[in-house]
Amino acid sequence: MATIAPSRRIRRTPFTPGVQAAGVKGYTVYNHMLLPTVFESIEADYHHLKSAVQIWDVAVERQIELRGPDAARLMQMLTPRDLRGMLPGQCYYVPIVDETGGMLNDPVALKLAEDRWWISIADSDLLFWVKGLAYGYRLDVLVDEPDISPLAVQGPKAEELVTRVFGEATRAIKFFRFGWFDFQGVSMAVARSGYSKQGGFEIYVDGTANGMPVWNALMEAGRDLDVRAGCPNLIERIEGGLLSYGNDMTRENTPHECGLGRFCSTQTAIGCVGRDALLRVAKEGPTQQIRPLSIGGDIPPCDMAWPLMAGKKRVGQVTSAAYSPDFKVNVAMGMVRMTHWDAGTTLAVTTPAGTRPVTVHEEFWI
Amino acid sequence: MATIAPSRRIRRTPFTPGVQAAGVKGYTVYNHMLLPTVFESIEADYHHLKSAVQIWDVAVERQIELRGPDAARLMQMLTPRDLRGMLPGQCYYVPIVDETGGMLNDPVALKLAEDRWWISIADSDLLFWVKGLAYGYRLDVLVDEPDISPLAVQGPKAEELVTRVFGEATRAIKFFRFGWFDFQGVSMAVARSGYSKQGGFEIYVDGTANGMPVWNALMEAGRDLDVRAGCPNLIERIEGGLLSYGNDMTRENTPHECGLGRFCSTQTAIGCVGRDALLRVAKEGPTQQIRPLSIGGDIPPCDMAWPLMAGKKRVGQVTSAAYSPDFKVNVAMGMVRMTHWDAGTTLAVTTPAGTRPVTVHEEFWI
Repeated sequence: MATIAPSRRIRRTPFTPGVQAAGVKGYTVYNHMLLPTVFESIEADYHHLKSAVQIWDVAVERQIELRGPDAARLMQMLTPRDLRGMLPGQCYYVPIVDETGGMLNDPVALKLAEDRWWISIADSDLLFWVKGLAYGYRLDVLVDEPDISPLAVQGPKAEELVTRVFGEATRAIKFFRFGWFDFQGVSMAVARSGYSKQGGFEIYVDGTANGMPVWNALMEAGRDLDVRAGCPNLIERIEGGLLSYGNDMTRENTPHECGLGRFCSTQTAIGCVGRDALLRVAKEGPTQQIRPLSIGGDIPPCDMAWPLMAGKKRVGQVTSAAYSPDFKVNVAMGMVRMTHWDAGTTLAVTTPAGTRPVTVHEEFWI
Repeated sequence: MATIAPSRRIRRTPFTPGVQAAGVKGYTVYNHMLLPTVFESIEADYHHLKSAVQIWDVAVERQIELRGPDAARLMQMLTPRDLRGMLPGQCYYVPIVDETGGMLNDPVALKLAEDRWWISIADSDLLFWVKGLAYGYRLDVLVDEPDISPLAVQGPKAEELVTRVFGEATRAIKFFRFGWFDFQGVSMAVARSGYSKQGGFEIYVDGTANGMPVWNALMEAGRDLDVRAGCPNLIERIEGGLLSYGNDMTRENTPHECGLGRFCSTQTAIGCVGRDALLRVAKEGPTQQIRPLSIGGDIPPCDMAWPLMAGKKRVGQVTSAAYSPDFKVNVAMGMVRMTHWDAGTTLAVTTPAGTRPVTVHEEFWI
């Protein structure tokens, strides 16, 4: 693969100096910003993530802030998930769809107060959609991208590390909850969340200037825990069944196809965009769905949708795949049509390196 | 710089096989898609662009299609440029702003018919803004991304090459006009336009499957013209004063700050979003503006905004810069405050490699 050309348009993050000093070897671009993809090697990073603790520059999870009297109304317009029971201090994973039920993003929403929300976004300019809706409906709400940059602490020793820097009280943070904690006089949201199945936290670092101080404090405090710079790990996230917007789902797909039907309460999420289309989908069920897959043989990096074949018939596609050292198999995921999605079904995938055998699984490798 | 990690999320284009076979050495990511940035070297590519002809994979200029009874109304809502006199077959460079007058994109709009438009976008998910407005205003219009991928033919021999493939009639296409021409039975829009000052065309290739056939036909037909794979050239575009959204301007900036005030007819572009804010700006004038700048000494690649200083006072920033072999100076552009934007003003720029002298110019190097 070629190198990535430097330009201001591909934004650096507050943590980029730390990432570079740690010897980052690969980047991707996510929300017009650099996202590290590998440090030592994807396999070495994977083993370390599962055994120790890593600091991840996930500033690419840009925040959209909604503030004002209509903030809660706008937030409920954005997602088919019913937000009525959500309390300040909670994080909700919220599918966001257009009027046809097509996925626009799959962010985590944080309720700061009844009239103030953050939406921690996946890779699309969701801000444009939110601003367009707010303008079209003349809502009384401010919509903007604040100077907030998430830094994730992930791995089995994450809790130990976070308490050393943010205090013992962080132990009490429940999964998908956040609280406010002091860092050198600045109050920052700390959530128990993150894009891995190894446990951990996301620190919503407030202010670019505070980026490297928080990074350095964590690195310093975790030296005896073997803390290292890391990043979302391709193998671990496939094992864990964590979807990636743009990879495993696009605007073509409904939440139900992505296995996110349980987050869609179209009967009660009154006022949400896409309700009519999703009511229809909920009634009939999706005709294809993301499934865990294993692939035999050796495979190249998956940089395009690989066709899934049942004989000569295309019945789906693989969109993420990698060799798992722990499970000794190529773990993968992709959309499979309902005629072939039962666990145990054997199919074939057409990769650039040739055809490989595929088995549909019931569960991801958790 | 590190390598770019492969994933489906960073979309390949219909021309990627041709680009890779031509030995691309660097990419950037633009609209979630691969955009080549260098083949032989930026300097060698530059000399060749100015003397021969190149084929550019600019499929990243994704199209937003507006279709239906309200298409023209929506198009005028999107831009402060007055579209009343625009005819089918014309291309207009249209600043697109939010309600505060902040730039969201700077695309080229193509009027296919009164009720059908394409917007050929710069690097932001403008589709989300357009869909949000259309939904909020309940407009009777379809908004979608069609399977259209622009391929540019740029350089002094571009006309000769394009006529060989699309016929002599292409010679009659005027600047920023387009016509419909046949390629192996498929009608495609061909415009005299492109992101260089060397002259040329953009072919709106219809259908992914037609991508490589068009690419190959042009390569074949241009062999004696020394046709090569190329890409937007950093040096040439700075010399020519061609702005880059995300680099030289962002949502922070008004069109007037970007020198695009001449495209804003806020008195007559009735119904455009941002009118109130831009009327105010037009009345008072911008307090900073993009200016041509030259920089002395040696400079590193510009991957962040470099502060422009007048003594100890920050008076602007450099956002694009490169050494020009033809003009034997580092050509650059950036925002400069009105107190220091007069041609001949000398300033200093703070680069990661140290402080360098800067001169403000009146004109770009055209």
